[in-house]
Amino acid sequence: MLGLAGAGALGAAAGGAVAMEVFDGALPAQANDPGAAVPFYGGHQAGIITPAQDRLHFVAFDVITDKKAELVELLQKWTAAAARMTQGRDAGAIGAVNGVPEAAPDDTGEALGLPPSGLTLTIGFGPTLFRTAEGKDRFGIADKRPAALADLPKFAKDALQPEISGGDICVQACAHDPQIAVHAVRNLARIGFGVVSVRWSQLGFGRTSSTSVTQQTARNLFGFKDGTANLKAEEPKLLDEQLWVAGGDGPDWMTGGSYMVTRKIRMLIETWDRTSLAEQEAIIGRNKGEGAALGSAKEFDEPNFDATGSDGAPAIARDAHVRLAHQQFNNGARLLRRGYNFVDGSDGLGRLNAGLFFIAYQRDPRKQFVAIQTRLSRQDALNEYIRHVSSGLFACPPGVSGADDYWGRALFV
Amino acid sequence: MLGLAGAGALGAAAGGAVAMEVFDGALPAQANDPGAAVPFYGGHQAGIITPAQDRLHFVAFDVITDKKAELVELLQKWTAAAARMTQGRDAGAIGAVNGVPEAAPDDTGEALGLPPSGLTLTIGFGPTLFRTAEGKDRFGIADKRPAALADLPKFAKDALQPEISGGDICVQACAHDPQIAVHAVRNLARIGFGVVSVRWSQLGFGRTSSTSVTQQTARNLFGFKDGTANLKAEEPKLLDEQLWVAGGDGPDWMTGGSYMVTRKIRMLIETWDRTSLAEQEAIIGRNKGEGAALGSAKEFDEPNFDATGSDGAPAIARDAHVRLAHQQFNNGARLLRRGYNFVDGSDGLGRLNAGLFFIAYQRDPRKQFVAIQTRLSRQDALNEYIRHVSSGLFACPPGVSGADDYWGRALFV
Repeated sequence: MLGLAGAGALGAAAGGAVAMEVFDGALPAQANDPGAAVPFYGGHQAGIITPAQDRLHFVAFDVITDKKAELVELLQKWTAAAARMTQGRDAGAIGAVNGVPEAAPDDTGEALGLPPSGLTLTIGFGPTLFRTAEGKDRFGIADKRPAALADLPKFAKDALQPEISGGDICVQACAHDPQIAVHAVRNLARIGFGVVSVRWSQLGFGRTSSTSVTQQTARNLFGFKDGTANLKAEEPKLLDEQLWVAGGDGPDWMTGGSYMVTRKIRMLIETWDRTSLAEQEAIIGRNKGEGAALGSAKEFDEPNFDATGSDGAPAIARDAHVRLAHQQFNNGARLLRRGYNFVDGSDGLGRLNAGLFFIAYQRDPRKQFVAIQTRLSRQDALNEYIRHVSSGLFACPPGVSGADDYWGRALFV
Repeated sequence: MLGLAGAGALGAAAGGAVAMEVFDGALPAQANDPGAAVPFYGGHQAGIITPAQDRLHFVAFDVITDKKAELVELLQKWTAAAARMTQGRDAGAIGAVNGVPEAAPDDTGEALGLPPSGLTLTIGFGPTLFRTAEGKDRFGIADKRPAALADLPKFAKDALQPEISGGDICVQACAHDPQIAVHAVRNLARIGFGVVSVRWSQLGFGRTSSTSVTQQTARNLFGFKDGTANLKAEEPKLLDEQLWVAGGDGPDWMTGGSYMVTRKIRMLIETWDRTSLAEQEAIIGRNKGEGAALGSAKEFDEPNFDATGSDGAPAIARDAHVRLAHQQFNNGARLLRRGYNFVDGSDGLGRLNAGLFFIAYQRDPRKQFVAIQTRLSRQDALNEYIRHVSSGLFACPPGVSGADDYWGRALFV
């Protein structure tokens, strides 16, 4: 099991075997050419430490069959289509299928002529896939549910909408071209007709987190740099400690995988925009221009939580977001975040419906996201300006090893 | 007045003076560098014949004041902010404003460090700005309402949602980076606090129309190339005939402007995706791969509506979209389209909420969009797969001539 306080040595040891399999194709391709393909096969799924692409289409499905064979067949079809689409090929033929001109096309066509654009497709399995809310073990996998996939608790101030929360299976599609991400999700939904149904779906137009030191930190819709302290692809020891599930952590089928938490966080930007710069910076605990922690000079300077201002008060307030979220106050827990800005039109009350679609990967949500969010939800000064309206929790299995493997095979065999 | 059949000579003559002012800064900048700035000042507003940028944030506002002076002051502030933002500068200071540290920032910050990204901001005035639905002439401009800004009729099969239709003022923000487009709209909304309220707002992730011969035709979510027959920036005579309002067309304040129609068109993509390729192509009247009209070889070959297949039936069916929409059957009427693909999550019925946000500019909607849509709404084979759920109509004034001018000045002085 993961012990986050002082777990460095343990993590490095336990994760040694996995570290050899770290998905190494992502960095050069992404860094040099946003149109390039990211390899699909590997020990870990792509789309986790892959340098965060610019655009997101996220989808959560309900499985509407009770037949395990139908679900497995879909996962096999999806995996084959994902292997094709991530390499810039169609999901299938756009024309006559197997010589049958009356058949509907096996690809919907809107990505024809476009490059792969760094597309990654990352699958996750929600708690309800293992046992429905009514307690039914539809697929005979209830005993394979990882302990780490424990339902998230209700956090203070949660304002979750069930219809855009949860889901049996999720797919995170990231790409540098949104048409490519949308095409991928749309074709997975098309292939899944009759077996799965779209529960909810979310577009993100701009990444807020960098997952590689090769990337600049981006800004969220509060106007602040976001994810400065994010886990990065170039920190393999930390990733083994904090991100990847190690052998012995739980069921074998998750070894090399990771747990994903999603939170749709509505930002009350109109209220925020009427707040002074000084107050905004005090709430976040960083300055807005450079992104440096208050009392520090540069973005990547380690925050000094003991520093005081001329008035003797802490330079970084006790309820500042950066303090409460920091590993120093969370038993060493860190996250690999892949968040995206969203605007979903307006809210009918004269305001933009805007915010952050937060995605975080981790080795054990109980010790990482849940621990951090418990503190944040109670104390964070930022809470006045945000509402958590959607929540998701998914177990993301390890990568697909080759053409004879498929998403989640070890869970179903 | 515009006579569309054989109006070439008239259009060219009437538009001669305007043609000299054609916004000429757009093409080189856009063609060479998607990060570059598009000039803001000019005889026409940018964002109409500017080569269609990749991303859209469209917003419609309700004016919530009855005081003309407040509205004019806002238009002046907006124009100044737009002139700054389109050139890659902040809307205003992010820090202390006029030395007052307690003031809220004059820029929200999320575009800091990003290039101009081809941002254009294009304003339009809706019928309700001239006279409210209750008949009130709030700003003393009712007699300046152009005849061409006649309320759109109800078309067959319209399924319009009033809460995402109409609006007193719209702003179309187009850019190659969605963060830039969102930042611009958000700051205009911020500046307008207390004077305007966001009525509705729409993001488009991918352009479907090219407005310049330098651009490739893009695909809509039916998977087909869209806008092959669009008006292009390189056709100044056609633009004078079909796009720009000429002196004598109506009130002087619109000379050099254009009329914008927006339609949010939900596509029933799941139904479409289960239709055979042959049927899809028959409905559109073009093939899917190349985008050629049926019976023709290449995308830009002029459709031959008289051609017949081996069975003697028309190669392009009588109810095919390309036939019904073509100028040959619409008294010569054409449109300059700037549509965008959208996905707004899911619809709660297991389907993606996806489609096309249609934007079209024209010299006189009565003879162009209304004439074409009247035919399409009654006969188009595509109607089985689409629903028009939102509609907007706006008069877009000519461009801003310089720093002492502002959006719509000639309407209000």
